[in-house]
Amino acid sequence: MNIRLSRLVAMVDGKLINGQKNGDCDSICTGAFPLGDESSGQVTMLDDSRRASQMNESEAIAVVTAVPLDSAPMAQIVVADTHTAFIKIVSHFRPPLTTDLPSSGVDPNAVIAESAHIHPSAVVGQGVTIGERTRVMPGVVIMPGCRIGDDCVLFPGVVLYEYTQIADRCTLHSGTILGANGFGYRQENGRHVPTAQLGFVQLDSDVELGACVTIDRATYGRTRIGEGTKIDNQVMIGHNCRIGRHNLLCSQVGVAGSCTTGDYVVLAGQVGLKDHLHLGDRTIVGAQAGVMDDCVGDQVYLGSPATPQREQMQIMAVQRRLPEMRREIKTLRRDLDRMSEKQSLPIDDQTKHAA
Amino acid sequence: MNIRLSRLVAMVDGKLINGQKNGDCDSICTGAFPLGDESSGQVTMLDDSRRASQMNESEAIAVVTAVPLDSAPMAQIVVADTHTAFIKIVSHFRPPLTTDLPSSGVDPNAVIAESAHIHPSAVVGQGVTIGERTRVMPGVVIMPGCRIGDDCVLFPGVVLYEYTQIADRCTLHSGTILGANGFGYRQENGRHVPTAQLGFVQLDSDVELGACVTIDRATYGRTRIGEGTKIDNQVMIGHNCRIGRHNLLCSQVGVAGSCTTGDYVVLAGQVGLKDHLHLGDRTIVGAQAGVMDDCVGDQVYLGSPATPQREQMQIMAVQRRLPEMRREIKTLRRDLDRMSEKQSLPIDDQTKHAA
Amino acid sequence: MNIRLSRLVAMVDGKLINGQKNGDCDSICTGAFPLGDESSGQVTMLDDSRRASQMNESEAIAVVTAVPLDSAPMAQIVVADTHTAFIKIVSHFRPPLTTDLPSSGVDPNAVIAESAHIHPSAVVGQGVTIGERTRVMPGVVIMPGCRIGDDCVLFPGVVLYEYTQIADRCTLHSGTILGANGFGYRQENGRHVPTAQLGFVQLDSDVELGACVTIDRATYGRTRIGEGTKIDNQVMIGHNCRIGRHNLLCSQVGVAGSCTTGDYVVLAGQVGLKDHLHLGDRTIVGAQAGVMDDCVGDQVYLGSPATPQREQMQIMAVQRRLPEMRREIKTLRRDLDRMSEKQSLPIDDQTKHAA
Repeated sequence: MNIRLSRLVAMVDGKLINGQKNGDCDSICTGAFPLGDESSGQVTMLDDSRRASQMNESEAIAVVTAVPLDSAPMAQIVVADTHTAFIKIVSHFRPPLTTDLPSSGVDPNAVIAESAHIHPSAVVGQGVTIGERTRVMPGVVIMPGCRIGDDCVLFPGVVLYEYTQIADRCTLHSGTILGANGFGYRQENGRHVPTAQLGFVQLDSDVELGACVTIDRATYGRTRIGEGTKIDNQVMIGHNCRIGRHNLLCSQVGVAGSCTTGDYVVLAGQVGLKDHLHLGDRTIVGAQAGVMDDCVGDQVYLGSPATPQREQMQIMAVQRRLPEMRREIKTLRRDLDRMSEKQSLPIDDQTKHAA
Repeated sequence: MNIRLSRLVAMVDGKLINGQKNGDCDSICTGAFPLGDESSGQVTMLDDSRRASQMNESEAIAVVTAVPLDSAPMAQIVVADTHTAFIKIVSHFRPPLTTDLPSSGVDPNAVIAESAHIHPSAVVGQGVTIGERTRVMPGVVIMPGCRIGDDCVLFPGVVLYEYTQIADRCTLHSGTILGANGFGYRQENGRHVPTAQLGFVQLDSDVELGACVTIDRATYGRTRIGEGTKIDNQVMIGHNCRIGRHNLLCSQVGVAGSCTTGDYVVLAGQVGLKDHLHLGDRTIVGAQAGVMDDCVGDQVYLGSPATPQREQMQIMAVQRRLPEMRREIKTLRRDLDRMSEKQSLPIDDQTKHAA
Repeated sequence: MNIRLSRLVAMVDGKLINGQKNGDCDSICTGAFPLGDESSGQVTMLDDSRRASQMNESEAIAVVTAVPLDSAPMAQIVVADTHTAFIKIVSHFRPPLTTDLPSSGVDPNAVIAESAHIHPSAVVGQGVTIGERTRVMPGVVIMPGCRIGDDCVLFPGVVLYEYTQIADRCTLHSGTILGANGFGYRQENGRHVPTAQLGFVQLDSDVELGACVTIDRATYGRTRIGEGTKIDNQVMIGHNCRIGRHNLLCSQVGVAGSCTTGDYVVLAGQVGLKDHLHLGDRTIVGAQAGVMDDCVGDQVYLGSPATPQREQMQIMAVQRRLPEMRREIKTLRRDLDRMSEKQSLPIDDQTKHAA
């Protein structure tokens, strides 16, 4: 799939500006990932000029952009529409696979380790690789291009959409679905038209997913679950999320698109995260909380909208006394009015009253 | 299945009153749907006299009722128990199908378009029709009486209960279940006895459903999802709901039974709707909100119970200051008490004090 | 699987203390369940000395304990680490089964009633028993050691993990998963290591489960759903829960581990329960509520944290007036300050002002 930069430029009808550090027409490109997810030798994309400063930290060999940058370490592929061009480039590296699957069992072009055990009722597509001692149970469907490591267990009914990548020692319980389309639409003439959903799901090693978990594929790159993270039943992770290492996500948690979490984050049951948030290392969020803002980490958050525990506990304590507070306010008003009335009386009457 | 009205009347042991506009013993009935969902030539049911005025707008050929109406445009089938009679009539038009399915593959009585692609591990029941270019992937189960249009995609593991109707260009992601029984019970001698669940699920054209979505069949008629509506993973839609056109329902939304929505409604993640609500066109409900009342439309609602955005934002702003408010109330009380004490002093002392 | 107590003691390298009522080296043990779930003839475990008083009510033949009790009616198996020993004992009675399943259809060692109907695409493991007239639909997977009663229906795609027990007349809708591992981990060198998940799920008679319900197996014993209880779509029940009889759990409810409910409990949509709670008979919890404390029963609870209805209604009524309350507090402060100012004036001025 490696391709010369000059050919990519031609493919998207772009204009090439050589990079200051590297990247010229003869450079070889090895992949395409969105900014922040790319590595050296790959093509990335800049669709938001506020992120231009990130170019200097990137090791990409080229960047697709609609607005030429004054200077960039990598080559620039200047195009009319960034997304249209990037979709073409991503599709070169990860061509939309026919989802045609073998009539039964394992496609002859799949590579299955000898000690792996694939139940005959599972369906395994072309180009799939499955590692040593991995067990694929009845009714599992693994679409083309997936890669599964050693010592994994896929319980009955798991479905992996194309290009899903699973590292070693992962366990996926029944009914779990990885890589369905992200929920992204744009409106066009009053209709919702799906945006590109060309990415995939990646589980790092030692991840365990409960039953009926759904994790959506990324737009261009990967929705990624970090090493050692454990996810309970009925959790939903949106497209482009990057969950850190050794997180614990309890049952029925929902994480909207493009969220990132640090390491050792804990989300209790039914927590919801707004899209595009970052939760720092060791953030803990209490049950049913709704997180609306970034969390710095090393702290407990409660409530909806989620608030640091100390603050939220005070709020909740007062909340229970609201009816009492309202009565007290009414009493204050009454007492104040009486006093004011009294004060307005001629001094003589006041003295009598006070007596 | 068409049947003469006189035969239906006999079937339910009813009494016929001819309609003022049409509907007599010789009329031909073509179907049975609950009030509001019926069309011309069909039989409907009136089980709540407050809805009697709707009779005038209905094009039904007959109505099943326990209380004879003074006048109605359509024939009346007067019976002792409306629901018992209507269940019999609905069952005539949509007989409870044996859910026996072929041992493998497609039932010989199913009608599959030539360009459709059915994976051999899918199971397709009798009387099913599947349109052109529709793709049915591994492990999908389509029970008897379902109708699926052209250019649909049913990803692995989708299950359609009997009589499900899917129009053209619908996409159903893995693990999605359409037509399971609605959650309706009546108590009888301390036990929950299921009520009739004879209806079905209908998707209009261009509907997309994410992974692990569940939509329950209606009691008698259809639970319906309008044209162009997109539904994210793990959403639950209860029985008898009618979701409008071009809605967006984000992940983990729950819609209780008999709700209706207008067009272009947006429900953010984890929103819940109480049963029997109506949300007007372009209603937007924020994440985790709990909607307890009808929404007029063209407005944003937040919170639980959901409240118009402006109002809810003010409430939430004050909520954060609750501890401060409580302290201020205490201070007010203290200050007021001190002042009151002072006021009660003889005038001389007051004057001194004030000096 | 019955075993002499002396052999169990040897198996865990323990020390035997004879029971005061019964239980000596020759006693025959018939099973192993955690305290509160054990019956006569079985071995139980005491891992929390505060529960020692429960020993007197227990009919167990022996108890595994790290701290010898002064006296107990049953034999004591004194060991260094209670859990390690109990895991060995439980594994004797319910040996971790190879989850190898027949290549297709029913294992020759399964016992299927003649009138039961098993779809050929279902997979049924060794040692499974299935009762009369029970119907197992396409794609269902029943792992080894499961027992299913008479007149049950398992809709397409249901998965039962090993040792699941289902009584008569239960209905399980599509996509429902019983017996996946509980969400229990302990940290070890910065990694989450799964704790023992050796238990199973038990449904008593006349239970109905909607689509995509997940119920996790218990740690050692059973996660149990009581007779006649009905559970709607997408509900999650954690490990070790004991749901009572004739409960109604609406859609998207989440019950964390080790909760127990009495009879006729109703949980409305999207309710969440903290772990280790008890809800008394006829407790009703309103939609989206978050229950954080035990509920005595015969009462309605609303809100998050859930509060008795009367109290919560008052709180909610006041909540809507929070902005108004805040304004009133400000006005009170202003009026009070003005009055205080006036009071500080010489008496002459006050009199004028009042005039």
